[in-house]
Amino acid sequence: MPLSGDLFIGTSRARTAATFRAVAPATGQPLEPAFAGAGTEEVDRACRLAARAFTGYRALAPDERARFLEAIADAIMGLGDELIERAHLESALPRERLSGERGRTVNQLRLFADELRAGGWLGLRIDPALPERTPLPRPDLRQRRIPLGPVAVFGASNFPLAFSVAGGDTAAALAAGCPVVAKGHPAHPGTGELVAQAIVAAARDCNMPEGVFSLLNGESHELGAALVAHPAIRAVGFTGSRRGGLALVKIASERPEPIPVYAEMSSVNPVLLLPGALERRAEAIAEGYVASLTLGVGQFCTNPGLVFGIAGPALDRFASAAAGALAGIAPGTMLTAGIHAAYEEGVRRLRQHPRVELLAEGTEPAGPACGRAALFAVAGEDLAADPSLAEEVFGPSSLIVRCRDADELLALVTGLEGQLTMTLHLEDSDEALAARLLPALEQKAGRIIANGWPTGVEVAHAMVHGGPFPATSDGRTTSVGTLAIERFLRPVCYQNLPQALLPPELRDDAPPRPRRVDGAWRLD
Amino acid sequence: MPLSGDLFIGTSRARTAATFRAVAPATGQPLEPAFAGAGTEEVDRACRLAARAFTGYRALAPDERARFLEAIADAIMGLGDELIERAHLESALPRERLSGERGRTVNQLRLFADELRAGGWLGLRIDPALPERTPLPRPDLRQRRIPLGPVAVFGASNFPLAFSVAGGDTAAALAAGCPVVAKGHPAHPGTGELVAQAIVAAARDCNMPEGVFSLLNGESHELGAALVAHPAIRAVGFTGSRRGGLALVKIASERPEPIPVYAEMSSVNPVLLLPGALERRAEAIAEGYVASLTLGVGQFCTNPGLVFGIAGPALDRFASAAAGALAGIAPGTMLTAGIHAAYEEGVRRLRQHPRVELLAEGTEPAGPACGRAALFAVAGEDLAADPSLAEEVFGPSSLIVRCRDADELLALVTGLEGQLTMTLHLEDSDEALAARLLPALEQKAGRIIANGWPTGVEVAHAMVHGGPFPATSDGRTTSVGTLAIERFLRPVCYQNLPQALLPPELRDDAPPRPRRVDGAWRLD
Repeated sequence: MPLSGDLFIGTSRARTAATFRAVAPATGQPLEPAFAGAGTEEVDRACRLAARAFTGYRALAPDERARFLEAIADAIMGLGDELIERAHLESALPRERLSGERGRTVNQLRLFADELRAGGWLGLRIDPALPERTPLPRPDLRQRRIPLGPVAVFGASNFPLAFSVAGGDTAAALAAGCPVVAKGHPAHPGTGELVAQAIVAAARDCNMPEGVFSLLNGESHELGAALVAHPAIRAVGFTGSRRGGLALVKIASERPEPIPVYAEMSSVNPVLLLPGALERRAEAIAEGYVASLTLGVGQFCTNPGLVFGIAGPALDRFASAAAGALAGIAPGTMLTAGIHAAYEEGVRRLRQHPRVELLAEGTEPAGPACGRAALFAVAGEDLAADPSLAEEVFGPSSLIVRCRDADELLALVTGLEGQLTMTLHLEDSDEALAARLLPALEQKAGRIIANGWPTGVEVAHAMVHGGPFPATSDGRTTSVGTLAIERFLRPVCYQNLPQALLPPELRDDAPPRPRRVDGAWRLD
Repeated sequence: MPLSGDLFIGTSRARTAATFRAVAPATGQPLEPAFAGAGTEEVDRACRLAARAFTGYRALAPDERARFLEAIADAIMGLGDELIERAHLESALPRERLSGERGRTVNQLRLFADELRAGGWLGLRIDPALPERTPLPRPDLRQRRIPLGPVAVFGASNFPLAFSVAGGDTAAALAAGCPVVAKGHPAHPGTGELVAQAIVAAARDCNMPEGVFSLLNGESHELGAALVAHPAIRAVGFTGSRRGGLALVKIASERPEPIPVYAEMSSVNPVLLLPGALERRAEAIAEGYVASLTLGVGQFCTNPGLVFGIAGPALDRFASAAAGALAGIAPGTMLTAGIHAAYEEGVRRLRQHPRVELLAEGTEPAGPACGRAALFAVAGEDLAADPSLAEEVFGPSSLIVRCRDADELLALVTGLEGQLTMTLHLEDSDEALAARLLPALEQKAGRIIANGWPTGVEVAHAMVHGGPFPATSDGRTTSVGTLAIERFLRPVCYQNLPQALLPPELRDDAPPRPRRVDGAWRLD
């Protein structure tokens, strides 16, 4: 099916006079077709439709929503190579990577479908009545979680499938029972349209309420602002820049009725190389580091942008091996010209910093938007004097921090902003130091990794892809893994309701689901 | 022990030049002693101390924190009649009520201690490594919740014990592992000092880290603003007015690093009288209504301030019976002169409204701050035309809304602001209408009650004392019941950490606690 460039408002299509085109980053050339840009009228239509869909959608049995998620997964797979080719054209990401990302996207939908059926997300609690209690009887109290309402999802540039139109936020919101109004990222509107086709087809096949999903496109900031400000929208999922995320948080907090914004914004994912590990395997760690740093031209939220070690021969061996490996890395095409320009600017800032040393660069760029890897080093005291050196440079650039001793290492980590991840490389001999560092790492990050790399975020039950501000706007949650569903839910208590009026899962004859009865866990 | 009027900064006492006195509402006379008012210096000292205490306090085993909570409960009971007498003097609440409130306060601490030992709040999730998985192995992922950091707790005027210095927010924060800097309500500083003495004694007896608890007093808005703005504070618990709550939310959102504010602000707790129930027991419902409305001179967050029924003879019988019962209610002394003045103003506004009918008033006031009960009625269409009629009048005033039919009832409920509670009075014959109304009630409130009254909030596992904005600033939570602990926690994932570095509860040899392994619940 050829791409239409239409907006998807429920199952209807819409066109507008304002159009834009995707640009192939590898060539800098615009791509067909022209895509309609949504204005406030389309925002209003999509949001009102979502509000109408909400009543019916949230009332569906969890199994019905699970089947919808699975149908979306099947429909995405049904798009076949066309999806991979278009995503490749629009993002310059390799086909193999995109194929893997597609797998992650559909597995995520299927995992959330399983979670819907398992029912732990319902948060069921029952405190039976105690009619004989003195001085006052206790009423019958039953609690479950219900969905917040329509969710606005902002697609990310760097995951055209897994964090975009049918990505993690959409999967979590739909699982929770919330209709989704997606704002596609303007860098990959064709990919977004194909995925929207799949979602709309699945919604039709599963008889979902009209408006359970809409896709709005556009390049203007006004579009996103109007979406977040719309009264029908009850929560926001966003992955992108700090500036963009904070702008949405501000709009959401200034609404007559404020709403939660789950914005994943920026992280340099500090890596701490402890002395025993450096001593024993500096070169092997350097190899893993450069691979993680340059993977996908460094365009991951979990890219290791900051590495700490205690100055000495072992850290020198590490830096030298990393520099050697990085010097052989060929530049890859970045996602957009804008991302490339921002990367160049970030690297230029580090190069020109009087206290920062350039250790190595990748090979010469061959194309228009190629990101050349760069490795820098700085002394711990210079980072302490200029904390802006720890700001994210989105792309394959990283900074090695040579600390005077363990005390300085701990002080520097304690002074960092909130992060998605913190990584330790350690041997048994490092455990005492690691134990000393751990409380600070926990305070700063959502995930702590030992002897690995932060890139590669497993979609699982125990994953946390989140962290204290400014890694995210709300460190109490995760945007990856089944816990993400809970972001879009809130608890409701039913006191003395007749059985017939209770939600099915709270009735005495409900099929067994995990629940707490008088505080005690019950599974049967 | 005589009251000192000191501030409690950890286990130290502090005095300042700025002092204030409590006023006995029953007489309007100031009470001894003079209490020190905290300035920014005392805020800074208490918050820094709390930050230092956090590291040690959060590392304690749950059982150690549980014993601290129990010691606080014992110490509060150990204060004996002195506490009740002082609270009675400062609040004018009857001794019997205060004695019950004390029971609720200590039971809450003990329930949270039990919950700490049961461990469900830890949110343990384990996804074991899958080293053989293709194309990539899965790492070992383990998740738990950790505390956010020091919490600022603002005491409420209307619960000098259960929502004040050692009230629900303090109990939840301490249970979660967060030190507390309490701001006592200036209406009952003596009560606050007695409770602080109990907490400090318990902290000493249990060898808690210095600074795990501080009590600051003062009358100025600047004090609260400085507390919420302090960098060491990581979350805020508040119960009070909408204006006060929104001011704190604004300060918290404008910090360099925003923090969550859990503000419980205002609610009129709508009660829906369905036709069958009205027909069958209008008079009995009216009796329960007036009792709930005038309990504690109407000074409850869950006071039934708005009652809906479908116009007709049965609603007339209800209104007439309620008016008759209310006319016999003697005015009680309100908590403060300010609350009394605001109540008088709210009643005056309703009296002067051209579309509102005064049905009845309580007997003539005898004292200076006596709140005279008032019952009003209005037509549904007039409420629709002036939604400000649905705003909270804190005290024993309520408005009966005569709806034309069920459609108007549903439309009016759908147009209401977020509420703590919604109540239905119904018979079997009303179930179809109730089922139609329920989705709207769920969207508007945190708790739905059948054939009862919203006053009397059970401290239990399944309780939700919360609700959509503006009932609270964050409808995703509750401030009463064990779920309240989770407000002060966030998830952290540990990837491939050596056993020795894992938190004890996530190690392979941990004592059994509720957890999810590969998504499946396990209790043993």
